[in-house]
Amino acid sequence: MIYLDHNATTPVEPAVAEAMARFLRENFGNPSSVYPIGREAKRIVNEARERVASALGAGRGELYFTGSGTEADNFAILGTLDAYPEKNEFVTSAIEHPAVIETAKYAERRGVKVTYLPVDEYGVVDLDALRDALTPKTALVSVMHANNEIGTIEPVARIAEIAHERGVPVHTDAVQSFGKIEVDVRKLGVDMLTVSAHKVYGPKGVGALYIRKGMAVQPFVHGGSQEHRLRAGTENTAGIVGFGEAVRVLEERGRKDRPRIEKLAERLKKGIEEAVPHVKFNGHPDLRIKSTLNFAFPGIEAEAVLLGLATKEIYVSTGSACSEESDEVSHVLLAIGLRPEIARSCVRLSLGRENTDEDVTAVLRELPGIVARLRKITAFNPAA
Amino acid sequence: MIYLDHNATTPVEPAVAEAMARFLRENFGNPSSVYPIGREAKRIVNEARERVASALGAGRGELYFTGSGTEADNFAILGTLDAYPEKNEFVTSAIEHPAVIETAKYAERRGVKVTYLPVDEYGVVDLDALRDALTPKTALVSVMHANNEIGTIEPVARIAEIAHERGVPVHTDAVQSFGKIEVDVRKLGVDMLTVSAHKVYGPKGVGALYIRKGMAVQPFVHGGSQEHRLRAGTENTAGIVGFGEAVRVLEERGRKDRPRIEKLAERLKKGIEEAVPHVKFNGHPDLRIKSTLNFAFPGIEAEAVLLGLATKEIYVSTGSACSEESDEVSHVLLAIGLRPEIARSCVRLSLGRENTDEDVTAVLRELPGIVARLRKITAFNPAA
Repeated sequence: MIYLDHNATTPVEPAVAEAMARFLRENFGNPSSVYPIGREAKRIVNEARERVASALGAGRGELYFTGSGTEADNFAILGTLDAYPEKNEFVTSAIEHPAVIETAKYAERRGVKVTYLPVDEYGVVDLDALRDALTPKTALVSVMHANNEIGTIEPVARIAEIAHERGVPVHTDAVQSFGKIEVDVRKLGVDMLTVSAHKVYGPKGVGALYIRKGMAVQPFVHGGSQEHRLRAGTENTAGIVGFGEAVRVLEERGRKDRPRIEKLAERLKKGIEEAVPHVKFNGHPDLRIKSTLNFAFPGIEAEAVLLGLATKEIYVSTGSACSEESDEVSHVLLAIGLRPEIARSCVRLSLGRENTDEDVTAVLRELPGIVARLRKITAFNPAA
Repeated sequence: MIYLDHNATTPVEPAVAEAMARFLRENFGNPSSVYPIGREAKRIVNEARERVASALGAGRGELYFTGSGTEADNFAILGTLDAYPEKNEFVTSAIEHPAVIETAKYAERRGVKVTYLPVDEYGVVDLDALRDALTPKTALVSVMHANNEIGTIEPVARIAEIAHERGVPVHTDAVQSFGKIEVDVRKLGVDMLTVSAHKVYGPKGVGALYIRKGMAVQPFVHGGSQEHRLRAGTENTAGIVGFGEAVRVLEERGRKDRPRIEKLAERLKKGIEEAVPHVKFNGHPDLRIKSTLNFAFPGIEAEAVLLGLATKEIYVSTGSACSEESDEVSHVLLAIGLRPEIARSCVRLSLGRENTDEDVTAVLRELPGIVARLRKITAFNPAA
């Protein structure tokens, strides 16, 4: 199997699975209990918290574990809107992950005015539109750090500066950037930031929200006193242990892994552009996550490419796994100006830690023929 | 170690840890992905869904996984209030878990009128008060199946009948009853029901909400299309696998385990009542979870008993682990009419699968002496 869908999820690192298995066998304590196994569970959770927080340049008291990156996004947005009932405006971008877009739509149904900032042809948010959107009633700006479908990196530090000049806090979904480029909450200057374990070779079912000390946010899940009363519910202890271990491995291997993965991706990108006629690369030429490759193959449906590659045990996707079940055309690809029929031809290949040079060679061997055969069937006319 | 705090959390069953470890090693697929490892992950999640649903007498399409029992309670209550914006009244009991009580308080801050039904000296909800509380504006009734601190079983089937006569849906938190007594959504006649994996020897970080087919509930976490669009976010696949396995073991062993555990608890109850003077048992004499024992030890602070037992490696608690960090007196014990100083003397012993006759013997050997010594220090006067 050649897995090229790391933006959807990543293989669990063996050390992560092992740490979780050991923890599950050895410690079942409830971190809220005061006797030794409870205190030990709490210590282990806080050790993981410290590790994840530190990887983000945050303090351990600024990191809150959640059940997913999606929950962290909901928490940031709804928790802030809840904290400022007198402010009922929210600013986000047109190319956010469904976790933000759908939360924005929910807020709209509850009377919040939402501005979806437009992006340019590369997917970069329009900063003038941001300036125009900010008002004294704006409760929050949320713009993703890197886009999950096309990899474009947003000017989040600049966005934070502009918003802060107007006294508006900023959240960023860094689910796709964490582990791939530097993610430092102080350098970005954001007030809240979302990460997820399963995109960095950790387990599914655990995410985290950085909340800058002093930032007022209302609880998202109500109940016991866990996570400083902001996210009640017994902690996913084993998942949190796995998240901590995944970040440990990331810090150990990242410096070596990243340039290697980027080089593989670059070779794949060049190879596809050379071997497949009329292919169009989506995303920023430079300011992007290098391991994310999104191509339009005019004249064919992306689904057909996926199936063709799948018969060779090469797994890629059309974009967000989170909306894969629906027939909708990608809102990201429409936002960068693609016509719907072009958007429907787009395939995302996202590389990761276990990919090899042989994987790239195999894709370059199979993909051009698959595209050519499909275009023959559909009688593709590039001049049309 | 003698662990007698199963109502706080349970040891992870070895088969559960093993199933999760195997899954973590073998399948990292995102259930939303359409290629084989994704589809396989989805199949495995749905297999667990079917197992948990079937144990509750529910259909597989009626069970939604969450990140905790607490989240399921929030989802049920806030999701229903959201679905009926024209109805702004909510009825619950005075002795609910913080997951329900704190959600009710949050709803109050958002303008919902909440009635907290009183209970009698045994902790049984007052049905006349329920009848009085229901109005055409009542969106939901939520009363727990069994109380976590004193074990009292509420007349949920009767509550559902009364509420349904008035057209009001009913939710019950069955976190403490599931695995200990029969929990059947049809027999209870409820519209929603909460369970949690870590109270039935499964992992922390996964719960589930039964939602009767046809019941209108708004999503709790917004984003992708997971869990029929009601709870977005990539699924905690390994945790769900663990939940499924825990329920499989429950069904395999429950019939044998339950009477054995109840017998142990009964012996412990009688032993304490015989050996400790002036002890008061809290909870219903008959309609209760038999493995939950809650005693008042007048004249001493419960914390001192906990510490005394902990030096013998016997671990019990004062009640809800979820509020253990706070100094508040138990709202449950106050609601059944205990004076605060008596409530502060209460200790909960909750038995489980791995407890033995020797464990009970050890507690009966140590506890009376600990209580006697503490009372000597505090110069306890039973006549005072």
